[in-house]
Amino acid sequence: MIYFTFDPRPDLKNDLLSSIREEKFEFTRQVDVELLKQAEILVTYGEDLTVEHLPFMNDLKWIFVASAGIEKMPLKELKEKGIAVSNVRGIHKTPMAESVLAHILTAYRSLKTIYKEEEQKNWNKKVPSKELFGSTAIILGPGAIGGEIGRLLQAFHVKTIGCNRSGKKADFMDDMISFDGLLNALPEADIVISVLPSTEETKNLITAEHFKAMKNDAMFMNFGRGSLVATDVLIEALENGEVGSIVCDVFEEEPLPAHSALWNFEQMTVSPHVSSHSSRYLERSFDIFKRNMKIYKNGDLANLENLVNLEAGY
Amino acid sequence: MIYFTFDPRPDLKNDLLSSIREEKFEFTRQVDVELLKQAEILVTYGEDLTVEHLPFMNDLKWIFVASAGIEKMPLKELKEKGIAVSNVRGIHKTPMAESVLAHILTAYRSLKTIYKEEEQKNWNKKVPSKELFGSTAIILGPGAIGGEIGRLLQAFHVKTIGCNRSGKKADFMDDMISFDGLLNALPEADIVISVLPSTEETKNLITAEHFKAMKNDAMFMNFGRGSLVATDVLIEALENGEVGSIVCDVFEEEPLPAHSALWNFEQMTVSPHVSSHSSRYLERSFDIFKRNMKIYKNGDLANLENLVNLEAGY
Repeated sequence: MIYFTFDPRPDLKNDLLSSIREEKFEFTRQVDVELLKQAEILVTYGEDLTVEHLPFMNDLKWIFVASAGIEKMPLKELKEKGIAVSNVRGIHKTPMAESVLAHILTAYRSLKTIYKEEEQKNWNKKVPSKELFGSTAIILGPGAIGGEIGRLLQAFHVKTIGCNRSGKKADFMDDMISFDGLLNALPEADIVISVLPSTEETKNLITAEHFKAMKNDAMFMNFGRGSLVATDVLIEALENGEVGSIVCDVFEEEPLPAHSALWNFEQMTVSPHVSSHSSRYLERSFDIFKRNMKIYKNGDLANLENLVNLEAGY
Repeated sequence: MIYFTFDPRPDLKNDLLSSIREEKFEFTRQVDVELLKQAEILVTYGEDLTVEHLPFMNDLKWIFVASAGIEKMPLKELKEKGIAVSNVRGIHKTPMAESVLAHILTAYRSLKTIYKEEEQKNWNKKVPSKELFGSTAIILGPGAIGGEIGRLLQAFHVKTIGCNRSGKKADFMDDMISFDGLLNALPEADIVISVLPSTEETKNLITAEHFKAMKNDAMFMNFGRGSLVATDVLIEALENGEVGSIVCDVFEEEPLPAHSALWNFEQMTVSPHVSSHSSRYLERSFDIFKRNMKIYKNGDLANLENLVNLEAGY
């Protein structure tokens, strides 16, 4: 039985049921342990499974996570039980890269200021206008999403420097550095973008020292996970003018509390964790699911797309 | 003598003087007829020359216009006098294409709404998020600027349809249509962008009929010249919901008067004719001027870059 812990839009649900006729489906809006006991395949957004559910996973072989965030899942325990976990990480690349480019271009072309002047019916031509052309960007996490950001930045003639643990080559990156090399490379960057997942290694990877190393007019963007950098570090960098602007789509605490000082800075943009949103999201997710159902039915669990490394946590 | 009717930034001026040592230069902030009489080459932004200046152009051979807008110049009279006019039209392509992409992505990723919510310290995830990927754009005026817009849109997997007088093939356009075919093609477009210059043919090219033919959620952008479409036509389209949003960088009357109804629409963005602005503008202009000085000195006036067709007006 294929058990969904959410209830998809009727048109998408009907499409699923008619394309996978041979299987029994169940859909509920919360985890139902009685159904979980009978499930062979579980489809979830990844935020509703805890260690308490493990004893009920009797027949479970595969968890399909219809999102990229798996940090709330009991990964080690799932590994012990021999359950395969795959997600849809590639799916976010288009909306996320479009969001990142939107924020970068907005900053370079001063749209936020233009909108404010517009509110006041002010025709003010004295807004700064920079060109993205010829600038340099460091992309922390040059995987599927980071690579798509790199591809688009290159189309704008931006030099892309990928930054990952090993410094190993990645697509659409003109240069590569390792996490250890980041501090040295920062003075060169006009834009620093993170799309890193939350792991032990990426937690607090960005510190006050990194902001001090950045150009004073650099743009820092966190579109991965809030654990990358402490809120206080962001506030200090803004207060000290160590960075030109910051755009975050993710925060240590979400929703960002109304009393947070981050809301108050002119140079700060708070995006409410929406950069991966897309009106076409679930449609694409289910395309991946259907494709992988065939792989699963062939018994090729090891060949599922976007299989999660349950030890590394990504 | 090379006569500038504006006074450039000292660093750029010094660079000019030291790279063209053999010529005499004059710089004033307004047209001085005594200097004009002696000038062989005139460098202007194109907005300060009138028919009254013609009798003083005794020695003038070449006018270098450090902008793209030449519609205020007495072109026919200059032709009669045998004076060559060239401009820097290619120079605008980078900042303008970046501006156009900024506005498109902002709309697709709802940044204007996100900024408004941010002002209120609202963490509101319920903002619409569309993907640019897979959409269709019509580009009116697929020349240097339109082509650069097309190139970038194609990087975002947007289908580009160029629209010019003849329907003749243009770079970075998946399809081509002529002005006559526009009305038929509009129902297909998610985005309609004009970067057309102001000529007899482009004046009021866009009418109420065109807006009625557009998708109700289409985005219309005028980044060429305000004469393309009457202000009343824009207001009517917004009032009737015939278009999803409008972004204009140019208007029939500039500055857009504070009493204009265009300021009042939520779906309207007023950009104060800044899309071509760039902190690197004059630097690039002077690079073109220096390059063309060599062509001029060789007596090759017919081979100057961006030579203006004084009859056609572009």
